[in-house]
Parts: sequence; structure tokens; C-alpha cells
Amino acid sequence: MASYVALSGGVGGAKLALGLTHLLPPQDLTLVVNTGDDFEHLGLHIAPDLDTLMYTLSGLSNPDTGWGRAGESWQCLDALAELGGETWFRLGDRDLSVHLQRSLRLRAGVSLSDVSAELYTALGIRHRALPMSNQAVRTQVHTDGGTLAFQHYFVRERCAPRVTGFSFEGAATAQAAPGVLEALRAPDLAGVIICPSNPFLSIDPILAVPGVRDALQQCTAPVIAVSPIVAGLAIKGPTAKIMEELALAQTAAAVAAHYGTLIDGFILDETDRHLAAQISTQTLRVSCAQSVMVTLDDRINLAHTALDFLRTF
Amino acid sequence: MASYVALSGGVGGAKLALGLTHLLPPQDLTLVVNTGDDFEHLGLHIAPDLDTLMYTLSGLSNPDTGWGRAGESWQCLDALAELGGETWFRLGDRDLSVHLQRSLRLRAGVSLSDVSAELYTALGIRHRALPMSNQAVRTQVHTDGGTLAFQHYFVRERCAPRVTGFSFEGAATAQAAPGVLEALRAPDLAGVIICPSNPFLSIDPILAVPGVRDALQQCTAPVIAVSPIVAGLAIKGPTAKIMEELALAQTAAAVAAHYGTLIDGFILDETDRHLAAQISTQTLRVSCAQSVMVTLDDRINLAHTALDFLRTF
Repeated sequence: MASYVALSGGVGGAKLALGLTHLLPPQDLTLVVNTGDDFEHLGLHIAPDLDTLMYTLSGLSNPDTGWGRAGESWQCLDALAELGGETWFRLGDRDLSVHLQRSLRLRAGVSLSDVSAELYTALGIRHRALPMSNQAVRTQVHTDGGTLAFQHYFVRERCAPRVTGFSFEGAATAQAAPGVLEALRAPDLAGVIICPSNPFLSIDPILAVPGVRDALQQCTAPVIAVSPIVAGLAIKGPTAKIMEELALAQTAAAVAAHYGTLIDGFILDETDRHLAAQISTQTLRVSCAQSVMVTLDDRINLAHTALDFLRTF
Repeated sequence: MASYVALSGGVGGAKLALGLTHLLPPQDLTLVVNTGDDFEHLGLHIAPDLDTLMYTLSGLSNPDTGWGRAGESWQCLDALAELGGETWFRLGDRDLSVHLQRSLRLRAGVSLSDVSAELYTALGIRHRALPMSNQAVRTQVHTDGGTLAFQHYFVRERCAPRVTGFSFEGAATAQAAPGVLEALRAPDLAGVIICPSNPFLSIDPILAVPGVRDALQQCTAPVIAVSPIVAGLAIKGPTAKIMEELALAQTAAAVAAHYGTLIDGFILDETDRHLAAQISTQTLRVSCAQSVMVTLDDRINLAHTALDFLRTF
């Protein structure tokens, strides 16, 4: 038996995660998902990355927007606007059912990981996705206009403020959710894949949960990351903009440098092949692949590449 | 100046309340609304009678169902069903916005009466509707199968269990919402109208709030009730069935007897004119009217009749 762990944020990470689920049986894959973007909104617990992954794996995701559900309607939010309620965070009618059910179960004392398992199972997903923690870890975005909660930065302010740094409120006292550290310490662990998610906003919060970074450092299996930056552009979201604001080169090389000795391998997009020599070191091997995932085949192919790469260590 | 108070439950009461708002300016009418049907569902505070009245007064009500909103959709609940969530209480997508906003405001510490005022105002309603109390008073239905919370009896069990009695949990320690007792004690109070709502399930909870019954007994203005029973039939809801189960005659006379000395006048439907002599006493006058309200004109006409009747005392 060989088991794998993948760390994932939202859209980009979910694409590769979907590919992995096509290649690995449920018992061989544990997805660990960022919950630093979670927030309370309209009295509901919103877990954007857990939901994006859930909708992606269950085939319910909206391929046009990259977030939310296909065939969504907006009756509730339209009516809420008439009441003067907050509508900057777009919650579709069908999506709302998830937030209602999750919030109800959380208030009943059920853990986030158990609620997520219930929701994923209800939607027919057999692979295991774990929130990074059952405690609240909330990404704070420090900007030249002050500190913003992640969704306020990301959705309400549309990433406009200039970023100066990040912090993960609650991380120091949070615990990894049941199963996370166990998966990273499994005797049959054959590899860890850091999905092509935003390193600062999607992966760093996971690494900030006590025990996770150490488990990655200490595991004997190889850890690889897939670059979310291709040809100096973020495939999705504000990664490149943030890197510029943090005075980092907007390159895959800077992403690899950010992960540093945590990773043993790095997957570059073919278009960035010229960076391979610059990135590779005695302890970091580089592989190139078609990493822009448009079709399902792209997702499966990249997952194949990642698993093949892991097997070369 | 002459002010009026109307006590109302849901559908039937809301119809007459709508008629009254067409005849009285906002400052001359206070609607006091049953909240004994309120309950927590899916983590939301649902206030069926406040909402039925709000939708009726704002023109948003669904004329076909008698509850909920016109042009409603059910995407959220359909998706919730796929998640295994509770769907026996039908919450439409647009209706949900009200429950979300109310629950959010209540959790922020705003009182039910203030939240209701915000919601009514947002929907353009200028007349004042007060919940009977800002504290939880919860109607319990005692049946041969045990005690049920009101909505479980009314919606989930569809009024099937045989009723043996009612109690109003929390009533003893509740306070009338701000404005309720003041309206009943107003020096210019010209009359109180008990709308044609279920006496046991919609009006008795209001009367159970400390101070309300006394204020009605002590006010010098006349108190009249409009019979919800016409020709032995409840115009809406389970009133007649409940009266049978409580071994009461299913007649307007039994409703008048239920209110007893609380009321000074009683409006019977024309079809029940033969009961007038039986009902009227030295302290209870009876008036007959077309009380089945199908059109808006019916609502306004019955409101006219009630106000005219009050002016004869």
C-alpha cells in the first residue's frame, strides 16, 4: 500500500485534487484543505475552500465562475438586498443549503471535520478531505490600508489594497484536525503534494497549524509542490499581484524559494522550463509538465505527472 | 385622535389587519402579533405570524398558498434535501432572506421588535406591528401522542394528532414587547379588535403574556372579536378540528364563550346570524357582517364594519 497526502486551497488546488481522485482509491489519498478563508457571514459558517473542493469533486462546481455551483440562482440574496442585508459575498440559493446545514451541525457541537465528512458523503464523494483544523484559524491580510479579514480583502475589496503581509489568527493554539498528522505520519506514506494553490493564502495557513510543518519536514516520503505561477502569471487569483507587493519576483522560482527546504521536488510548467536549472538544488529536484488545467484530462495528466515524479525519489 | 389596537395571528388575522391599514393612518393603529408559533429551525429564528403579516401588508404574500411569498423558488431547500437536511418546514429562497437577516440581527443583540421594525420598514410598511413579546413564548400542543412544539404539530404532523390542550412555555416570565401595553393603555384608545385568528393558537398566546389580558380587561375602550368560525367551519386552519377535540361546539358561539367577559362585542358572519340572540348578553353585543375575506374589498369592508361597530359603544 502507498498513501498520499495533498494540501489544497480552492480552485487551482481542487483541480489537481480532482485529478488525484481519478488515479488513487479513496483509502490511498487524504486531502488537507485550507480553512484560513473560512468566516462567519450572515450568521453562517462559510468554508470556501472546503466547498470549492466539494463541488469540484462531486461535479457540482460552476465551470464558468470557478466558484460556487453550476445552475445556481440568487433569489435569497436578491431578496436580502431588498431588506438592506449584506450581499457583497455572493451566496447562491443552492450553495446556501451547505452553509445552513454546516452551521446547524456546528452549533449542535459537531466538529468541522465531521460536518465536512457528512456533507462530502451526502454528495457522493468517497475520498477523504480534512479541514486543516477544527479550530478557527483566520487569515488576516495586512495592507497599506490596515488589516483585513481574508474575505473582506479578497471579495469585498477585490484584492485592491496593497498587501504588506499575512498572519493566521488562532493558528498558534489550533490543533490539526483528526487524521491530518496521522496521514502525514503514516508508515506507508509515499508522497505529499502541495497543490498549485496560493502559497501565501492557501498553503501557508495549513503550514501554520502546529505540527503540520514539522510533519512535512520529518516525513521520509518526498514532498513536492506544483507551481501556481506560470510564465509569471497566476493561473487564478491574486498570487502574482501579492508577490509583486511583497517585493518578490513573480516567478515559479520565487514560489519554490518560498517553500524552501520543505519541498523535495517542484513541478514547473513547460513554459517555465528555462527556470529549472535556477530552481533545482542538491535537495530540490524539478520536473516540467503541462500544468495549466483546462480539461478533466489536464487534471488527470497533471496528477499522473505528480505521482510519477514522487515515485522517482 | 382615536387609536386602535388589533391582535392578530397569521393568515386570517393578517387579512383583517390589511383592511385596517387601508382605513387608519399608521399612527392610529398598533398591530400586536402572536409569536407563540415562532421557533428555531435550521439555526434560524422563524416568526411565521410576523412574516405572514409582513408579506400581507407589503403585498408580497402568496395568494395561492396563504403563506410564504409570491413567486417563490425552492432551490435552497431542494439542495438541502440532497444533503439530508430537514425540509419538512418549507422555506422558500426569498423567504429565507428574512430569516437570515432576522437571526443575524437577533444574534447581534437586537430585540425581536426592533428587528421586525427594520424588516417591515425595509419592505415599505408604515404601520406598526409589534411582536407580543421579545422573549420566547412557545406554544406547546398537548396531544394524545404527547406534547409537540407548535410547528411540529401544525406543519410536520399536519395537525393530525388529537389535541387535549395547550400551554405557552415561557409566557409566565415573558414581558410584553415595548409599546404593547402602552398602546392598550393609551388615553385615546378607541377600541381593540381581536382578529379572526385561531383563539387557542393565535390569540391565547398573546393573552398569556403578563399584563395583556389585564390591560384588555381594564381598558375603557370596547374590545371586539371577529369570529374565525363561520357556519361551523374554520375559514383557515385547524380551529374547528381543535374545538371538536376539546369537546367544544364548533360554532361562533363557542368562540365568543371562550373569550368570555374579555370582549364587549362580537362580529358574526351573516350566515351565523341565527346565533346572534344566543351569543349576545347584557355585556356582549353582537354584530353581523360578511366576514369571509376573499378580495381586498372584503378586507376593507370588514375593517369598516369593525371600526363602525367599535364606534357604537
